[in-house]
Amino acid sequence: MTGMKLTTEKNLMVFSGRAHPALAQAVADGLGTTLVPTEARDFANTETYVRFEESVRGCDAFVIQSHTAPINHWIMEHLIMVDALKRASAKRITVVTPFYGYARQDKKSRGREPISARLMADMFKTAGADRLMAVDLHTDQIQGFFDGPVDHLQALPILADYVREKYAGHDLAVVSPDAGRIKVAESWSKRLDGAPLAFIHKTRDVTRPNQSVANRVIGRVDGRLCVLVDDMIDSGGTICNAADALMADGAAGVIIAATHPIFSGPAVDRLRDSVAQEVIVTDTLPIPAEKHFDKLTALSIAPLLSEAIQQIFEDGSVTSMFDTVV
Amino acid sequence: MTGMKLTTEKNLMVFSGRAHPALAQAVADGLGTTLVPTEARDFANTETYVRFEESVRGCDAFVIQSHTAPINHWIMEHLIMVDALKRASAKRITVVTPFYGYARQDKKSRGREPISARLMADMFKTAGADRLMAVDLHTDQIQGFFDGPVDHLQALPILADYVREKYAGHDLAVVSPDAGRIKVAESWSKRLDGAPLAFIHKTRDVTRPNQSVANRVIGRVDGRLCVLVDDMIDSGGTICNAADALMADGAAGVIIAATHPIFSGPAVDRLRDSVAQEVIVTDTLPIPAEKHFDKLTALSIAPLLSEAIQQIFEDGSVTSMFDTVV
Amino acid sequence: MTGMKLTTEKNLMVFSGRAHPALAQAVADGLGTTLVPTEARDFANTETYVRFEESVRGCDAFVIQSHTAPINHWIMEHLIMVDALKRASAKRITVVTPFYGYARQDKKSRGREPISARLMADMFKTAGADRLMAVDLHTDQIQGFFDGPVDHLQALPILADYVREKYAGHDLAVVSPDAGRIKVAESWSKRLDGAPLAFIHKTRDVTRPNQSVANRVIGRVDGRLCVLVDDMIDSGGTICNAADALMADGAAGVIIAATHPIFSGPAVDRLRDSVAQEVIVTDTLPIPAEKHFDKLTALSIAPLLSEAIQQIFEDGSVTSMFDTVV
Amino acid sequence: MTGMKLTTEKNLMVFSGRAHPALAQAVADGLGTTLVPTEARDFANTETYVRFEESVRGCDAFVIQSHTAPINHWIMEHLIMVDALKRASAKRITVVTPFYGYARQDKKSRGREPISARLMADMFKTAGADRLMAVDLHTDQIQGFFDGPVDHLQALPILADYVREKYAGHDLAVVSPDAGRIKVAESWSKRLDGAPLAFIHKTRDVTRPNQSVANRVIGRVDGRLCVLVDDMIDSGGTICNAADALMADGAAGVIIAATHPIFSGPAVDRLRDSVAQEVIVTDTLPIPAEKHFDKLTALSIAPLLSEAIQQIFEDGSVTSMFDTVV
Amino acid sequence: MTGMKLTTEKNLMVFSGRAHPALAQAVADGLGTTLVPTEARDFANTETYVRFEESVRGCDAFVIQSHTAPINHWIMEHLIMVDALKRASAKRITVVTPFYGYARQDKKSRGREPISARLMADMFKTAGADRLMAVDLHTDQIQGFFDGPVDHLQALPILADYVREKYAGHDLAVVSPDAGRIKVAESWSKRLDGAPLAFIHKTRDVTRPNQSVANRVIGRVDGRLCVLVDDMIDSGGTICNAADALMADGAAGVIIAATHPIFSGPAVDRLRDSVAQEVIVTDTLPIPAEKHFDKLTALSIAPLLSEAIQQIFEDGSVTSMFDTVV
Amino acid sequence: MTGMKLTTEKNLMVFSGRAHPALAQAVADGLGTTLVPTEARDFANTETYVRFEESVRGCDAFVIQSHTAPINHWIMEHLIMVDALKRASAKRITVVTPFYGYARQDKKSRGREPISARLMADMFKTAGADRLMAVDLHTDQIQGFFDGPVDHLQALPILADYVREKYAGHDLAVVSPDAGRIKVAESWSKRLDGAPLAFIHKTRDVTRPNQSVANRVIGRVDGRLCVLVDDMIDSGGTICNAADALMADGAAGVIIAATHPIFSGPAVDRLRDSVAQEVIVTDTLPIPAEKHFDKLTALSIAPLLSEAIQQIFEDGSVTSMFDTVV
Repeated sequence: MTGMKLTTEKNLMVFSGRAHPALAQAVADGLGTTLVPTEARDFANTETYVRFEESVRGCDAFVIQSHTAPINHWIMEHLIMVDALKRASAKRITVVTPFYGYARQDKKSRGREPISARLMADMFKTAGADRLMAVDLHTDQIQGFFDGPVDHLQALPILADYVREKYAGHDLAVVSPDAGRIKVAESWSKRLDGAPLAFIHKTRDVTRPNQSVANRVIGRVDGRLCVLVDDMIDSGGTICNAADALMADGAAGVIIAATHPIFSGPAVDRLRDSVAQEVIVTDTLPIPAEKHFDKLTALSIAPLLSEAIQQIFEDGSVTSMFDTVV
Repeated sequence: MTGMKLTTEKNLMVFSGRAHPALAQAVADGLGTTLVPTEARDFANTETYVRFEESVRGCDAFVIQSHTAPINHWIMEHLIMVDALKRASAKRITVVTPFYGYARQDKKSRGREPISARLMADMFKTAGADRLMAVDLHTDQIQGFFDGPVDHLQALPILADYVREKYAGHDLAVVSPDAGRIKVAESWSKRLDGAPLAFIHKTRDVTRPNQSVANRVIGRVDGRLCVLVDDMIDSGGTICNAADALMADGAAGVIIAATHPIFSGPAVDRLRDSVAQEVIVTDTLPIPAEKHFDKLTALSIAPLLSEAIQQIFEDGSVTSMFDTVV
Repeated sequence: MTGMKLTTEKNLMVFSGRAHPALAQAVADGLGTTLVPTEARDFANTETYVRFEESVRGCDAFVIQSHTAPINHWIMEHLIMVDALKRASAKRITVVTPFYGYARQDKKSRGREPISARLMADMFKTAGADRLMAVDLHTDQIQGFFDGPVDHLQALPILADYVREKYAGHDLAVVSPDAGRIKVAESWSKRLDGAPLAFIHKTRDVTRPNQSVANRVIGRVDGRLCVLVDDMIDSGGTICNAADALMADGAAGVIIAATHPIFSGPAVDRLRDSVAQEVIVTDTLPIPAEKHFDKLTALSIAPLLSEAIQQIFEDGSVTSMFDTVV
Repeated sequence: MTGMKLTTEKNLMVFSGRAHPALAQAVADGLGTTLVPTEARDFANTETYVRFEESVRGCDAFVIQSHTAPINHWIMEHLIMVDALKRASAKRITVVTPFYGYARQDKKSRGREPISARLMADMFKTAGADRLMAVDLHTDQIQGFFDGPVDHLQALPILADYVREKYAGHDLAVVSPDAGRIKVAESWSKRLDGAPLAFIHKTRDVTRPNQSVANRVIGRVDGRLCVLVDDMIDSGGTICNAADALMADGAAGVIIAATHPIFSGPAVDRLRDSVAQEVIVTDTLPIPAEKHFDKLTALSIAPLLSEAIQQIFEDGSVTSMFDTVV
Repeated sequence: MTGMKLTTEKNLMVFSGRAHPALAQAVADGLGTTLVPTEARDFANTETYVRFEESVRGCDAFVIQSHTAPINHWIMEHLIMVDALKRASAKRITVVTPFYGYARQDKKSRGREPISARLMADMFKTAGADRLMAVDLHTDQIQGFFDGPVDHLQALPILADYVREKYAGHDLAVVSPDAGRIKVAESWSKRLDGAPLAFIHKTRDVTRPNQSVANRVIGRVDGRLCVLVDDMIDSGGTICNAADALMADGAAGVIIAATHPIFSGPAVDRLRDSVAQEVIVTDTLPIPAEKHFDKLTALSIAPLLSEAIQQIFEDGSVTSMFDTVV
Repeated sequence: MTGMKLTTEKNLMVFSGRAHPALAQAVADGLGTTLVPTEARDFANTETYVRFEESVRGCDAFVIQSHTAPINHWIMEHLIMVDALKRASAKRITVVTPFYGYARQDKKSRGREPISARLMADMFKTAGADRLMAVDLHTDQIQGFFDGPVDHLQALPILADYVREKYAGHDLAVVSPDAGRIKVAESWSKRLDGAPLAFIHKTRDVTRPNQSVANRVIGRVDGRLCVLVDDMIDSGGTICNAADALMADGAAGVIIAATHPIFSGPAVDRLRDSVAQEVIVTDTLPIPAEKHFDKLTALSIAPLLSEAIQQIFEDGSVTSMFDTVV
């Protein structure tokens, strides 16, 4: 037979954008490798430039970027990195978004809105992404926005196990700050041995016409330590108001737990000053030093990402990393 | 200048598959037109054959099919109709799914599951669909599964206005049978002048080890006429159990309202024998005579579809058909 | 160089839909492996659900489904299996259709017809199929409907060798029941040592105005044992009428041979009661017990599929499996 | 409402490559328009250059090119014209191939062959073609190779009506020169009032080992004027041998009729010297003066193309141009 | 014939992002229409949100955004606007980029670089753009990056006519600041009645080892008023150094002319303090008040854009707007 | 775990079209392998037929074809080879174009022109090409026309090192025959130790009204041996005129160097009779015996192609083959 034979080897390479290098470094450390040296900078007119400093031909590339503010800047860098990898003959490109930007724009709530979460998925595909890995997408349906495999990781075991251990012996309740996210609270409840469930219903309070919206607690929380859970904390208003409502309704205390610490604008002040005893997040997004505060606990998501990448690289199972079905 | 000029005319044509011809007929009637004569039949080996009996060249085609059982058969007929229209030079093809099949398979709940709702969207695109029109998709995110315009119509005004008028003077509560669908109940609550909200939480009842799941009502319903709302009624178990739980919790009565009457297997028996006073649905799916029962009210969705098609054909606004933002 | 190296392994996995599990089982046996455990069932409203019960990440997947009745149901299951494999990170997906559904809808015979055979190919591509394997496509051109490699296997050697051995010493003729399929008969003729060729021409018999179509034998068959060959037997009318015409024309006997035993409606009765001595088919489609009859011989296609899969998996040659060019 | 309104006009424009300008001119004449002035030439290294000399923005373009020898050159010119039209904002582009090149490479007869007929369809799509119009494709399945509408015109009425009129009163038979093309002969037979059918079977003559192939006539032709029909005449060997076989079998005479006069190499000599009384073709391909010969009759295909373009432009029906279903 | 007919109207609508509203407003004014009211803002985490405040169904949309700093932010807004228009059923979407971002990343200068200019084109296509309009692309080849019609407008007539008129009677020379852009200077030379040409060659000066790069003037400029031309001025270093080199080489004076005033970082200071007498640009990019300076002349590009949009909307010719071929 | 495992091997196979077999043979020799036996011929009507004579399943295919005259014929053969490889299950297909046809049609210079260089890239993609390898593309931007990895090789080191060695001790200047290609000359200048740069400016000579274009030398060349460099020599007019202009301007001599010897029409006569001392090219295109002439030196490009293919096959680096950045 004509030709020259060679045994095929695959080579795992991990790449990081500039948005959250500490996380990417920790992921690489967890894998026992190093980040691929990369030149990335902005031109005078703010155009982004990226170049990898060693050959990536034939590699199995994992490209990590946290979609933090300024989010359009970092997403574009992420896309440009994928384009450069495609053109440099990477064999397979997995886009890793610890926090997936624009996840909340996942539907048209009103006519003539975009569905930006789908647009992002399509643009990563266009740039050359073969696969996607994300942590706690705002809605599960976003998996279906990408035309290819999506590995959807859950931070729930990390967060909930921390709570269960630390607050063992307390009488817990799990509370969703919003009617639309009770499913997440249900998963927490299962993980916390069936702790009772409640949610906050935003309603117009007819007795106080000047105050347009009131937060009503639906469910029983009195005397309980409430674990207020959400996927992200953005400016923190909703969740801090929810905490107040819980205390007003007789809760024994409030703990806030969320995967993604966006912490925009007044978030840190609100959380620091809130009735919550502790605020527990992961580091899917960078938390700069000035946004740290006493009550804040940030658990590392890096081990989860490292293990998932290892499984994917070795054709193992990501599904089996999660012992419970959520 | 070279060439021959002609003023462009567009021609609206409405097509129907064989799944629910009465609805398509009513839509055509509402538009003041007739359905395009179509030969559709199954070959001996159950392959579907479709042919349109007059020229469709250049038309603005609306192809109506309700995805009822046997659902794969009717979806395939729908796809084949679109293929035939594409190849026959229809100018624009809008797939009309009063009930969009596989809408509940909109995410991977576990590893190695399909996302069939996305697959359906992609297959309609592949067959030649330019646009999609649907009523009350199971989740709003399905809009983002289709790569093109989706007109997402709401049956809520039809259903809720009927309830408001008929049950004026009653003390209403709106109840969701499932934690994941409270958003729908919130819309109902707004439409029903802020009626209070509750939901059913399925939980393991630790006090009764032999009975694995108990329905707990979260929220206050005692003394109220509960409107139990959902997007669809399939085999009816969940919603009838929910009705029981409401009565057990002191509700004054229960009305069931849902857009899509799937009515599989034991659904009709369960609903007929349930504690509910009235079951209100639309006719997005066919309800054969043997599935009618006394308490059932089926409101017609045809006027909504007719008006939306008219707006689309005339480049009007579908958004403005819905006075409230849901 | 940065990164982690690993020698690449490929893993062959065989999957089966529910349409014809016995065939898939035989193929797996032939390969010395087992079918991947798969949960497949229909929901109450007949929607199909599929989930693989072990990790398929990185595998070389062969997905077998016979497109038997109810054909739309089984094709949709096939498509959904492919979608699930794609999203679960299978490396390469080969769709195996022992009988390829809708193969006869491979052109527009009249205006405004679909070309469903192309639509099926496109939908499998959309779902995620990389490759296609089929046995005796109705027309060879269907290979060109799929945008990718198609391995087109021939059952002719299996069928013809059986005939040659069993009927050695007979004076054979090869007959096509239809003018459009004489090419197939020519291949048989070559394989049967140049046996003479004939075909049946359907014509309006001007002498019998009440009987609209007559079958005329074109070619000489008197005194010969006629092997009436076709790719499929659907309701059996054409081929049984052809057998009658041959006997009327002086044939010594008739044997019917076809690859695909669709056996719709009256087929079994017609074949059993026909003048044919033997009906020889393969098991590309399931033949339930009640469709068995004395004259029927069903040869297994499984060894052919197993060998082809083995060749594909090992980057061998499928072409060289067929010693004669057809 | 914001914006500026304008009634939409469409503008038909007809374009011609350099392969067969006389035909394109006749088509434009038939439509009452003129060909769009076009600069087309080859650079020194034989690269093709094309530019349209007036604005084509928004036009409904019909681009005519006969795929004659040197066929790759003219197909490439055709593709480049489509690219130029797409980039110049033509609204809709219909590729018109009176003879569709590479139609005979419509399947893999052996492993590792291309399916060039599909490749051509895909390349026209890639270049920007929206639609395809062709005359008498070698096989009907080629319609399915193009992902979009195909208007498939038949020259049969033109050719057969000429024969019927000229040879009225003769005892006709319709003969296919090849087993694989009897379907075409069947259509002729219908059009010629049910004239009997025969075909030529190429076979190894075991009695003459040195002469590898013999032509056997299957069917009765003695005493009849045989109309030997095919879609194309390439080098003419097959059809002239068939004519000889018919005369040897007692035919009263032979007429040859085919749509596409490829007339490669020895074709003209063979036809001129053949036993055929008349050779009837259309002008889908150019017949240069030196290829004319006494027995040749070339009927114009231009009126058929003009009428079809008119119907397409006016959203009329092409299907209804053909009174019989073939 | 079945159906309802309507004469087709098209509706021109002009949209603007937030990057350079004054230009979009001027374009709309020039067309005699108004910008479509649009809600555009950033969420707390800097995600962009866009919604059009009236129906855009069926419109011919022109979406204007200048890609100024922060460029990734404004490009993403542009993409999201296109997505929203596509999903809201705009009929045709033309992306208007007075300055096309990332145009300088149009090739790989070194291995493992992206080709971001192509990526941008692909992403606009993915988002839903049908057409592209741009002014003075950095290289003409970028037209070929977009898979569809590109209207490439030239600012040269505006700039050059201004220079010709104002500096009539001067002895002009046209100078390119870079060897790679002499083609642009050649166009200027033609427009300025054949003014002589020169260019600046950056070279290592072997006589001064400490100063790595020297600018050498290739061509004769002594005693002439040099028009130093380029497509864009970014940080201004290159062009100001070129001006110095010209004066050192004996030029009588220097005028700088460029289409796109990027004016990053030190650009304004450099230009203000440079030897150039006048700096002439257009307003394809916004020039905030603090970047105005005495020698600066900014000519409006809006009339050019308005006229081109008008031509496109009315199916006129954009090519004929430019009397000379560049 | 279910399935059968196998270590993956990859197999390099080199294929050649008929345009320039000597080059392909030399490349295969350099790799230590042989060309895959291939049947390629033209049918009577000039349609191209290709078939590979051994299994190519799973191979890493490199398909070499020089786009020489008749260029459309050879490009089409190239495309058809790729189609055949795709359908025969080649794993990865790299199109190797030592000279990339239509490279000069890389933009619209005037309205209604094609961008044929992009069309070629898209057609290779459509046919099945995964990757592209080319030598000295006419413009670097063509890399961006292909949606995938492009390995862009440079002949500069081969050509320039030859000149440097042979003409060591001479006082060299590097001259571009055209303003638009000075960038190439700049690379030469760097490689030739900073030799001074000049270019030829075509201008209307106002003093000689009858002679429309004059060649003016921009830069100083007197007394120097001028290396006139370009990427290709087509009909040779431009470059020979440039050589004359250099001698008229006082050059000591002229050497012509170019990568691609197209040598159309009068090229050989012009070059032979020109003032140039030596004409140096590579063999990216075939130079038939009758086009050889005394002053011609043709350096082999095969070692460069062999090494690049080896690097690609072994996942090495192509970038690092070029020590200087051009």
